[in-house]
Amino acid sequence: MAFSNTTLTRPAPTALSGALEALAARFGNNLITSQAVRDQHAHTTTWLPSQPPDAVVMAQTTADIQDVVRICAERRVPVIPFGTGTSLEGQVNAPAGGICIDMREMNRIIAVHADDLDCVIEPGVTRKALNEHLRDQGLFFPIDPGADASLGGMASTRASGTNAVRYGTMRDNVLALKVVRADGEIITTGTRAKKSSAGYDLTHLFVGAEGTLGIISELTIKLRGIPQSIAAASCSFSSVEGACNATILAIQTGIPVARIELLSASQVKACNAYSKLSLPETPLLLLEFHGTEADVAEQSRMFSEIAQECGGGAFEWTTRPEDRTRLWQARHDAYWSVRGLRPGAQAVATDVCVPISRLADCVVETEADVARSRLVSPIVGHVGDGNFHCSLLCDVNDPDEMQRVDGFLHRLVERAQAMGGTCTGEHGIGQGKQKYLESELGPEAVQAMRALKAAFDPHNILNPGKILPA
Amino acid sequence: MAFSNTTLTRPAPTALSGALEALAARFGNNLITSQAVRDQHAHTTTWLPSQPPDAVVMAQTTADIQDVVRICAERRVPVIPFGTGTSLEGQVNAPAGGICIDMREMNRIIAVHADDLDCVIEPGVTRKALNEHLRDQGLFFPIDPGADASLGGMASTRASGTNAVRYGTMRDNVLALKVVRADGEIITTGTRAKKSSAGYDLTHLFVGAEGTLGIISELTIKLRGIPQSIAAASCSFSSVEGACNATILAIQTGIPVARIELLSASQVKACNAYSKLSLPETPLLLLEFHGTEADVAEQSRMFSEIAQECGGGAFEWTTRPEDRTRLWQARHDAYWSVRGLRPGAQAVATDVCVPISRLADCVVETEADVARSRLVSPIVGHVGDGNFHCSLLCDVNDPDEMQRVDGFLHRLVERAQAMGGTCTGEHGIGQGKQKYLESELGPEAVQAMRALKAAFDPHNILNPGKILPA
Repeated sequence: MAFSNTTLTRPAPTALSGALEALAARFGNNLITSQAVRDQHAHTTTWLPSQPPDAVVMAQTTADIQDVVRICAERRVPVIPFGTGTSLEGQVNAPAGGICIDMREMNRIIAVHADDLDCVIEPGVTRKALNEHLRDQGLFFPIDPGADASLGGMASTRASGTNAVRYGTMRDNVLALKVVRADGEIITTGTRAKKSSAGYDLTHLFVGAEGTLGIISELTIKLRGIPQSIAAASCSFSSVEGACNATILAIQTGIPVARIELLSASQVKACNAYSKLSLPETPLLLLEFHGTEADVAEQSRMFSEIAQECGGGAFEWTTRPEDRTRLWQARHDAYWSVRGLRPGAQAVATDVCVPISRLADCVVETEADVARSRLVSPIVGHVGDGNFHCSLLCDVNDPDEMQRVDGFLHRLVERAQAMGGTCTGEHGIGQGKQKYLESELGPEAVQAMRALKAAFDPHNILNPGKILPA
Repeated sequence: MAFSNTTLTRPAPTALSGALEALAARFGNNLITSQAVRDQHAHTTTWLPSQPPDAVVMAQTTADIQDVVRICAERRVPVIPFGTGTSLEGQVNAPAGGICIDMREMNRIIAVHADDLDCVIEPGVTRKALNEHLRDQGLFFPIDPGADASLGGMASTRASGTNAVRYGTMRDNVLALKVVRADGEIITTGTRAKKSSAGYDLTHLFVGAEGTLGIISELTIKLRGIPQSIAAASCSFSSVEGACNATILAIQTGIPVARIELLSASQVKACNAYSKLSLPETPLLLLEFHGTEADVAEQSRMFSEIAQECGGGAFEWTTRPEDRTRLWQARHDAYWSVRGLRPGAQAVATDVCVPISRLADCVVETEADVARSRLVSPIVGHVGDGNFHCSLLCDVNDPDEMQRVDGFLHRLVERAQAMGGTCTGEHGIGQGKQKYLESELGPEAVQAMRALKAAFDPHNILNPGKILPA
């Protein structure tokens, strides 16, 4: 197995100035070097410090991406792909400087194949724009990570979100990619066939690679028919265990629940305050069922029976769009409601994922840890997948508190891994979780990842400093 | 991007004898060098000529696999993993000789986690043995490629089969692997968490790699609850187009059909003769629905309406186990019924997969090509995925006929690729389809695959001569 050193050094000043000169000649006004724009492109939704790139190129075409990569590769200047900047683990930071490629103007929907339930798009298309475009054809793209992220970014971080329990993650919904490799050539990773066993699975090598092995310039993704009927439901539980047990039973029974979200008691409290609701301030499950009218009625009935068995309170369900919206608004506003708990605080969002049988243990122990650590952190979870999020509200200027946050984050990952889980279900490794790869998978897996990186990016110019620890 | 040369040479005689000596000392009776056993391990279900290994080791443990690999790696002797020998494209041949590792005695079910719907198994566990073991717990593993293949082999060839339209392929059902790499060390590729975005997707790099990047020594796979009710149905169509259109509509409508299989008119004729049935000798769809009783009744009703719209004939459905068995027996006996069409002939099985919108065109053109080429080839298809199989009945001793077969196989792949499809949906590349990788994905993708191979197996000892063209 070949190894690479991923020591991180800024490019030589002459290399950088040479690259900027060549880029200016090639891109004119689409090369931007103003401090404000560079800062915007390092602004992430994390507490990780911003590390702006040296310049930003507004890519219009795949050929633009190829030319940026070629100009940078020749001079060993880093290239950082940028979608909407909604990643959470520092994926768009430029720790060694370099050129950010902003994809927002590569937002064309190239083809929709309604019969085949797929479409071909550019990486800057956002989730909401895509679904807006598809609605008239009765189709939708199911992955919903919350933010209106770009599809290129969602593929690169292997995003998932509330619908993943039924429709899978980005891993399950990307059919093929075009990827600009480190020398500027283009790799096609697959076809529009729904399945293939033709050679190594290059598609899934680039999904989740955070732009470190190549830059996605086109995606072919799976679509679904908009369900005939959608029902929303909610059920309060006296304990997290009860809510988790109901979830396990629902999954085991094969109820094809489309969404099943846990809100911790403190999260419900935050939602009540923010959204002017009067939900019981105990653990809450919010659910969504998709299917025919008969289907969703039966799914709801089956779930309500399970919920009663598991100590659930009143079970409310509805298919009326306005009632559904009201019910889910609380979940969608969770982020804002949390910030309301401690105005002015920085929210540190993190996620782990465990086998579902360990979810109740993991959430309960984590809540106890929050209390012991004198921290504020509501919990929301995509519990059908065993995935949950903590939103820590911190005063980043209080070193003592930040030390407690640091200890808590470390124990959270250790706890999830000790239960057979992973340090991140959907946020990715980026800069924030590199130290946990080896404790999760062992040194041999990290060596294998280094060998992959060396094979695809021998000069370490593609989003350097992400995923692999230096 | 790094490149490797994959020229195929037999190991030096002293290297081989040195390896055999070391293996004999380590494995005693579990090293077998008899010609009969070696021949058995190169016997594949294809028309490709057998290429036996120099010896076979009956592995009992992961440590056994590690020791074979270490002994062989030191001397540059090839290592070929073997499950049940049911692969179709020469995957278990030993074109450069070497040591076959037979996994059949590594057949322990290490753990079943019913709450998490997963289990941990050794690679020699077969599909039927696993489902036998799981039945009492109300669980099953849904991937059914027809043959009673080993799970290690199914993962290695990215197998799928009749249930894939609902439950996905091996790609979608492997959570994590342990893999012995080319230097004998073990890579752990994932955890039991249902999803993760922790680093590169090593799991899916090994699924479908046909043992060329590492040897799978343990699998963690997803399970499902046995459905409350299973209904089987059949419907004849006057044309392949009608059957394909009904399939497209069913998928678009979101009917979660568990199986939807097309039998061509000539295949129905073969089944009638073999299974003493009297089905109309026109294209036939066989279906299976899984769910609650109400679900399957509704799914069947919805599909029957679609079938009528698309010119389907009488729609018969049943939930009685004996009737289901009778209906599916014809499909399961398809292989044998085909052989009955031309006793003594060799069956050449091949598969392609296209976007479902092109399926009718592809099948119709392929049937016309069969006729023009004066060949005999019934067609069966996993049509919900756009995947279909030709079973060519050939006299391998007739050079003129074999030339026509060769031309037909080539045109079949060209046709599928021209329609946006793939040269193989589920049989893999092995030795038989190497020449089509580049026409399907382009030289850059093949270069990327070579770079992967070089990174993981620099001395080309892991199942050499498979997937990548020399």
